[in-house]
Formats: sequence, structure tokens, C-alpha cells
Amino acid sequence: MHFDVENPLSPLNDHFILSKGHAAPLLYAAWHERGVLTEEELLTLRSFNSVLEGHPTPRFPYIPTATGSLGIGLSIGAGIALNGQHEGYASYTYVLMGDSEVSEGSVWEAAQIASFYKLDHLIGIIDINRLGQSTQTMEGYNLEDYRAKCEAFGWHALTVDGHDVMKLVEVFHQAKAMRGKPTMILAKTVKGYGIGSIEGKENYHGKAFSKEELPGVLHELHDRFINVADMHLPEPRYISLPLPEPQPIEPFQLPPAPYNLDERVPTRKAYGQALAACGEYTRRIIALDAEVKNSTYAEIFEKKFPERFVQCFIAEQTMIGMAVGLATQGKMPFASTFGAFITRAHDQIRMAAIGRTCMCVVGSHAGVSIGQDGPSQMALEDIALMRSIPDSIILYPCDAVSTYKLVALMAQHSKGICYLRTTRGATPVIYKADKEFKIGGCSILEQSARDSVCVIAAGITVFEALKAYEQLAKKNIFITVIDCYSIKPLDLEIIQAAVLAAGNRVITVEDHYPQGGLGEAICSALCNQEIKLIRLAVYKLPRSGKPEELMRYEEIDAQAIIQAVERLQLV
Amino acid sequence: MHFDVENPLSPLNDHFILSKGHAAPLLYAAWHERGVLTEEELLTLRSFNSVLEGHPTPRFPYIPTATGSLGIGLSIGAGIALNGQHEGYASYTYVLMGDSEVSEGSVWEAAQIASFYKLDHLIGIIDINRLGQSTQTMEGYNLEDYRAKCEAFGWHALTVDGHDVMKLVEVFHQAKAMRGKPTMILAKTVKGYGIGSIEGKENYHGKAFSKEELPGVLHELHDRFINVADMHLPEPRYISLPLPEPQPIEPFQLPPAPYNLDERVPTRKAYGQALAACGEYTRRIIALDAEVKNSTYAEIFEKKFPERFVQCFIAEQTMIGMAVGLATQGKMPFASTFGAFITRAHDQIRMAAIGRTCMCVVGSHAGVSIGQDGPSQMALEDIALMRSIPDSIILYPCDAVSTYKLVALMAQHSKGICYLRTTRGATPVIYKADKEFKIGGCSILEQSARDSVCVIAAGITVFEALKAYEQLAKKNIFITVIDCYSIKPLDLEIIQAAVLAAGNRVITVEDHYPQGGLGEAICSALCNQEIKLIRLAVYKLPRSGKPEELMRYEEIDAQAIIQAVERLQLV
Repeated sequence: MHFDVENPLSPLNDHFILSKGHAAPLLYAAWHERGVLTEEELLTLRSFNSVLEGHPTPRFPYIPTATGSLGIGLSIGAGIALNGQHEGYASYTYVLMGDSEVSEGSVWEAAQIASFYKLDHLIGIIDINRLGQSTQTMEGYNLEDYRAKCEAFGWHALTVDGHDVMKLVEVFHQAKAMRGKPTMILAKTVKGYGIGSIEGKENYHGKAFSKEELPGVLHELHDRFINVADMHLPEPRYISLPLPEPQPIEPFQLPPAPYNLDERVPTRKAYGQALAACGEYTRRIIALDAEVKNSTYAEIFEKKFPERFVQCFIAEQTMIGMAVGLATQGKMPFASTFGAFITRAHDQIRMAAIGRTCMCVVGSHAGVSIGQDGPSQMALEDIALMRSIPDSIILYPCDAVSTYKLVALMAQHSKGICYLRTTRGATPVIYKADKEFKIGGCSILEQSARDSVCVIAAGITVFEALKAYEQLAKKNIFITVIDCYSIKPLDLEIIQAAVLAAGNRVITVEDHYPQGGLGEAICSALCNQEIKLIRLAVYKLPRSGKPEELMRYEEIDAQAIIQAVERLQLV
Repeated sequence: MHFDVENPLSPLNDHFILSKGHAAPLLYAAWHERGVLTEEELLTLRSFNSVLEGHPTPRFPYIPTATGSLGIGLSIGAGIALNGQHEGYASYTYVLMGDSEVSEGSVWEAAQIASFYKLDHLIGIIDINRLGQSTQTMEGYNLEDYRAKCEAFGWHALTVDGHDVMKLVEVFHQAKAMRGKPTMILAKTVKGYGIGSIEGKENYHGKAFSKEELPGVLHELHDRFINVADMHLPEPRYISLPLPEPQPIEPFQLPPAPYNLDERVPTRKAYGQALAACGEYTRRIIALDAEVKNSTYAEIFEKKFPERFVQCFIAEQTMIGMAVGLATQGKMPFASTFGAFITRAHDQIRMAAIGRTCMCVVGSHAGVSIGQDGPSQMALEDIALMRSIPDSIILYPCDAVSTYKLVALMAQHSKGICYLRTTRGATPVIYKADKEFKIGGCSILEQSARDSVCVIAAGITVFEALKAYEQLAKKNIFITVIDCYSIKPLDLEIIQAAVLAAGNRVITVEDHYPQGGLGEAICSALCNQEIKLIRLAVYKLPRSGKPEELMRYEEIDAQAIIQAVERLQLV
């Protein structure tokens, strides 16, 4: 591997992902040998004040992203390699996997896409030691089975004795010379190699030796392998870290949103248009699709910037993994598919957050308002899932103008995973093109001194709240209507004041299951304010039907809001 | 396919999973031809009062479970086929997939496990029409690539012209005759076959013809294919449905829990012991593991009932998919792995709920209290994820006795997905062996008339709350302590009363991110009670360290509770 410790961010550097993250001590030991960590630092392993965690995280800044949930490394490596291919870098990306790990389907997803994109600078290594944590792997030492799989998935495959350093050097040389396809090195190894008492035996996974056993084990290793002290390693120089933070995208402002008041535009389409517009201002934006670009409207970006569009096919886990890889290289990925199917990659998103990834995820077809396609296609838990992600941002605009402006802010955000929720159907434009929006903002659409209830809506339900407003006003009942387009963070000060002004009576209404969504977010934020709250949400398992039938059935429409307002007024 | 419409639950019947659920109209049409649906019923497709949804769900009772999120059908089919193999049934299970769909890694995960278990009564069909929703597939019409992949994954593969019925009959015959491995039928087809204007063309995915186009299209089809009216189909008899509900497990009671007060036992171990004990009372329990049986303690069940233990290796999506398949056959699956890794299968769990699956999922290693392994291994969002699942039940016991008793209730529950959260470290037994627990219950551990705050804890934090109680009592400050072991449903009546009795001052404390967990559940439930609430949770991204260091860092320990009590007393 080429890695210039003096220039850790050099694009000439090779990349390494330890997908089998539980082998972290080996990784830290290697950095120690490279002179980056002192022996004293190395011995802080797994302790509270150490950056050397039990599984790799970028708290140790030579690690690009977190690993430790198995099967995600290859897709991250594919993203890094794709970036190198795109930028014309000569660097290689290496991903070390365990043999148990490759039973994760996500590995084969990533393998197939790496082959599709001919990522010949991506080199995988499977450490085939036959033993998983609790049992033997399915394949055991059947290296030819692994080879057949890798070749069927379009990879060049090489087998090697993983303990023979000279042979390893040779196969890595061959792997680097390969053109037109990625290479998988199938390294046959023995777990516990070099320590006779445990070599190749079960029940030693992740177990430390006792103090009594240690001298014998060290003696055995010392006899068998090169003594590190003889290697004349460079002096440790870890002191120059931490590495610089990734730079935020150079600020830009889009021209006014190209929509007229009352025009009907689906927010998913405004997303595609906004992303294409943003693409003019920064080449760091990369759009990733899971083969629904004509539904999410990512295709608008593709048409304008085909070279910055990555088709991941129906492989959401790989789409997110590649996005993480691209983000480690300074790109701003926008990964989009149906919100319902982003659930497929939740583990990857969770790990991306632990890996301090800055990226954007876009889920279309939110809620029962998609209609006839039925519950399997409806994102109804996505807010709950994304809210629980550390440092996440959740935006859920109701119209094209707010979507357009928020996408521009997403492209320029510099911390955490930003999730945008879009709606299938066309909704009327309610904001003027020069209206300002912010992450952590909200918009008060109706408010007067006579308001007796504050209705907090987002996305599709904003229009139901506005309809309820109209009908109630005829009866001389007035309500505040808030478009809570930023669900995390919430615009707490404005919301608290508006709720207080409406006599602390609140209704939340959302096209989402009741758990973990807008209602619970508001409820948690206002809990100490002695509010009277009704939470309207999708309480019943939905089905196929027309959007308006389903919104009625779930009681998240204007009629349900009116009834809730009338109930709250009696309190 | 053998299917006796008169005996829809007969174990002799073959099974069919339409994994490419968007082809649902074809499935309904087939049931119409089989005489189960009238033409009038067929034409209710996708309408609100119809059971014929846009994607298949068991609201139409001939459909065993929901599909429509791609890539899940093969694992469900593998579960059904494994059940048949286990029970000695001669029936076959057929799974029809799209070609775009097989880019989902979950397909290859399932393929590999089906091969491992030699499920020769499982027959997959890939409908290779070359066109995805928005673009051509990676493989196009390269059938030999598909064959190489299937064979490398241990399957018998057969290619066929998918429009040639006689050849199809022949390959299905060959597939059924195959022994020792499952068969994949690679059917080359043309999208829109038989309609010249769209045959093999892009941009017709899921699009209906206009009224003007319809007569021409029907005419073309009529000329080319058998007229259904000439087929003398059986009379429709759908009226005899719905099918009987699955029977609950015959009730049983375990002997008293085998733990002594103050003994230290990890709840994960009590889970394994309880499951093994339950196994005596019903053979419907099947334990599934994702290769961490020595961590989750599922191995205790395996040792006792090896024939009812399914090793899924590190393939969580397939573990859940197979559990769903087993559940459709009347089994009570217990699928367990680290809670953090259950996130990998969230889409499958979401779909299982839409499919009305009754099963149990067990996540071990909850929260920062696992310690040194670091955040990738900590379940910190699992409650949020599982709460958002419709009809889910969430149990989070703190000690071995409560775990033991709750597992017995889980084994006998009859609706929805029941999630159990277990803890890594050994915790003291605080309940007597004859204490009663219930789904939807809680346990008041400390309460007096002098209580000024109600502390609601669950799992590991119960012990912190008890420590806080001890220390506060010395200062003459008294608190209620509730063990909220059932997080969904909550024991609302008891909790509301206890909170009211403590002056409506509440502290929730949980080893989980603040969103969607215990705190928000309580907050949502008590929102209208004018409470003063402090929610202690994992607000900071955790790291490696000792359990007690991490609980201190996250402020979910006794000290944090004491400080919160003191703060609330000033309110």
C-alpha cells in the first residue's frame, strides 16, 4: 500500500477498509508499525479516553469511517474506488473481509456493482480461516467455492496461503495489474496461527489470554516471527493529528425557485430539479439511485450531469455504502429511493452516523398519500428511523418552493446525515419564490390573536390543516397552522411560542405511524409546557386505495383535524 | 402446482410466493382462473374496499404474507421449504422473482442458505425480461451470467424460454425431480410480450393503457392466446374464505424461574434458558440464529432441540425472511442476534408486519452498557425501530426472572411481532420466582406516600434507579421506581396513577438514543397529564469504555438520576 503519513489526505494515497472491524487491534498495531501510534497509545485499546475503540471509528483519524457491523466494507470501498476512477487517481482501495462476513448479502450486492463499474482499483481480501464466532462457516476451507462465486460476480479471483508473505506480495502485485475488473484475494488462513494451543480451534473468537498463559504465547510468537524491535520502525508521530475536518461546500445561492403560486408540483420532482440546479454550483454533488430514478426524479440530475450520477440498481445497502465511501473522499452524496426501501439500508445508515459521515438521503413516496400501491411502498416509519440517527437532520417540505430551497441547504450542510422526505402526488405551491427556509426552521401559515388551537403539520398534511383552517374560520373558530418542514432539529422557540399563544392546545398531524414521528417529536419538545395534545397519525395498518380515502381512513385529513380541534376546544 | 382449493391449509399443498409483488394483478388473475375470485372481484383491484391490493398482502387470504419490497421472497420461500423438509411434506415451494430484483443482496443470502440446507423442494424462477423500472438490468439477457451465479451459490439452474408453456412444463418437471439442491429456473421473457406496440420497450413499467388503446391491445392478445372463456374454468368459490386464523399455541406454564434473589445472571442467558424450557411445551418453537448463538445464548435451545434450531449464519435478512416463512406454516419463530444487527433486516420486519406475521425477535447487547466493543455493536435505536412496527410488542426485562417469564408469554402470543431486548452484562435477580408478569405490564419496585418524583426505567437502568433510590432515601428524598419492562404496550393505568401520586414529576432513564425510545413512549402517553419530565437517554454518540464509564458519560446512571430528581424537586 502506498500511504504517505506526511500527507494523509493526499489523493495519491491508497485506502484501506477493515470490513471485519473486530480485528481492529491488528489495524492499530499496523499503524503503530507505520509510526503513527506509540506503544503506549496502542495499549490504551478499548479504554474510555482512547481513540482506539473496540471496532474502528474515525475518532482515530486514520480510519475513514466506522466498521464493525459486517458486510458493509466492500460497498464503502466501491464508493472510494469509484471516486478514484472518476477523478483519475492511480490509488488503490483495499477491503479486508472475514469469511463469515461474506454470508451477508450486502457483500454480493457490492461485488456485483463493483464489477459492473469495472472498478479494477478495488481489491478485496477474504480472510478464510474457516471459523466464525460460534460455528464453522458454510464454506469451510472450500476456496474453489469462493472462487466460483467471485468469478460469477465478475471478479478476478486469486487464492493464496494467507500466511506466506512472499506469496501475498505476489498476488497483490497480480491484483494491481488486473485491468477491467476488481480482484478478490482468497487468503487461506488459520485462526490463531502461530499459537499451537489454539491454532485452528473453535471457541477462541475474541478471547484474550489469561495473564498466566501470556508469557508462553508471547514466547511462541517471538520464536516464530520477526521481532518487531529489529525492524527499525519510524519514530511515532501521531502528535500531528487530528486530521483536518472536511471542508464545507463553497457557499452558493440558487436563483429563485422556478415555481408559481398555486401551481401543482410534486415535491419529489422539485427535489430532482433542485438537485440539478445545485449541480451547477458544486461538482461535489453525486446522485445515487436504486433504480427508481423516474420515481424519485433523480433522473433530472442524471440528464444534466450523467458523469456524476451513480446507478446502484435495486441494491439500497450498496447505494448507502457507496455514498459513505464517496463522502469519505469529500463528495456530497444524495442517495435517493422510495422512503420505504431506505429501511433496507438502515444498518448502513446507522454505521454511517457512527462513522461521522456527512451526506444526504432522500426518501420519496412518503405515507399513505401514495395511494393504490399499498403499504409495502409507503414510507411510514422513516421519520422514526432517521430521527434516531445521531446528528441527523430531517426535512419534510410540503411544496415545491420549500423543497427547492431546502435541497440547496442540504447540499451545503457540513455535519451528519440529512434526510429529505418527499411526496408522490402533486401539491400546490404555497410559498413565494423568495421565501426563506432554514434547517431547524418552520413556517407559520395561519396565526391570529383569536387562535384556540395550534395545528402542526408537515408535508402532505399541511394542505389538510389549511383546509381545516378554511372550514373552521367559517364557524368562527381560528387555528394556528404551522408547516413544520424541519422535523429535526425543530424550530423550538417559534413552536413553543405559537402553542402558548393558542392556549397550549396542540394538534399534530402526520402521514406516518404514531411512533417516533412528528407527533412524538413535538410532544417530547413541549412535554413540560402543560399542553393539551391530540396526535393524528397513521394508527391503522394501511391498504391500497385512493390517497384521499386512505387519509380519511387513517384520520389525518381536514375532517379529522376539524374534529380534533372541536374536541380540544372542550378541554 | 398442487393446490387443493377445498383444503387451502392442507400440508400437501404447494406454496407460491410472488416476490416481484408488483406483478400482483397476474397473481389475482391466476386465482380467478382457479375459481377463487369472480371477475367482478378481480376488477376491484387496488380499490379501497378490495382485498386485492396493489402489492400482495394476506388481506387476500390465499396469499401467505406480504411482498412488494423486492428481494425478500426467496428467504420466505426458504423458510417454508425448510418447514416442509423438517415435517417431511412432499410439497414444493415456488418463488417468482424479477430480474431487477436479484440485484438485492438478500436474494443471494437466501440462495446460499437454501443451498446449505439442500432445500430441493424450493424452486425459484427469475423472470428475465431485461428491463427494470427505469433502466436495463446489469445483466440484460445474459442468461449464462445468471446461471453461473446460481450454480456458484449451489443451485441447480435451468434456462428456458419463459413464453413457451410446454418447455416451462418440462423444466418444472426437471426442477421437481432434482434432489439435494434447490433449482432456479431462468426464464427469458419479453416485457409486454404479445403486444407489438410495447413489446420489449422501455418506459412501460407499471403503466396502464388508455381507454383508447385498450380495444386494440385486447384484440391482439385475443388473437394470440387461448381465450379464457373456452377453458371451462371452475365456478368461483371465494365465498368460503377467509381462511381460519392461525391457532394460538396451546397454553402452558413454565415451572418457577430457576434463579435466586440477588444471583447475577445476564438477561440474554435467561432468554436462552427460558426458550429451552418453553421448547418442552410446544414443538412449534423454532430458534433462528445469525451466527452469534454463543452471545445471544440461543445455543442453550440448540443443545436441547438441535432439530428445531436454524443456523442462518451472518445473514440477518434471511434469518427474518425464513422466520416469516416458518410463521406462515404455523411455527413460532424466535430469531435472535445482537439488537444492533437486527437493523440490517428492518425492511424484512416492516414487511412481516404488513404480512400479519406472528413471530418473536430477540436483540441482545442492548445499549452502551455492553462497554468496550463500541457503538457499532450497541443497540441504541432498536426500541425506536420496533415501536414503529404496527402491532408490535416490545419487552425489555431487567433481570433473569422477568426475562424467563416474559419469554414464556412471547412463545404463546398470537398476534404481531414481539421484540425482546436483552442485556450483555450479568444483572442481579430482583424478582422472586413466583412473581407474575404480563405483556403490557410494569412493576412498581419502590413507592411510598412521600414520593416526590416517579422514575421510570427499563432493563439495565432499573438498577441505576434503585441505587438512586437508596442514596436519595438517606437524604430523606423518596422516589417511585417503576420497572417498565413492557414498553409497547405500556401499562398506562398504573404508570399514570404512579406519576400523579408523585406530583406529576417524572424521570425516564434508558440505555437508548432519546428518539423513539422509552422516554418518548412515556412522554407521548402522559402528554396531557401536565407532567414535569426529564428524559435521560444516550444523547452523545457513544464510544468504547467500561459499562459504568459509558453510563456515566451518557448520564443514565444513578448519579444522573439523583441530579435529575434534585432538579425536578425545585420545579
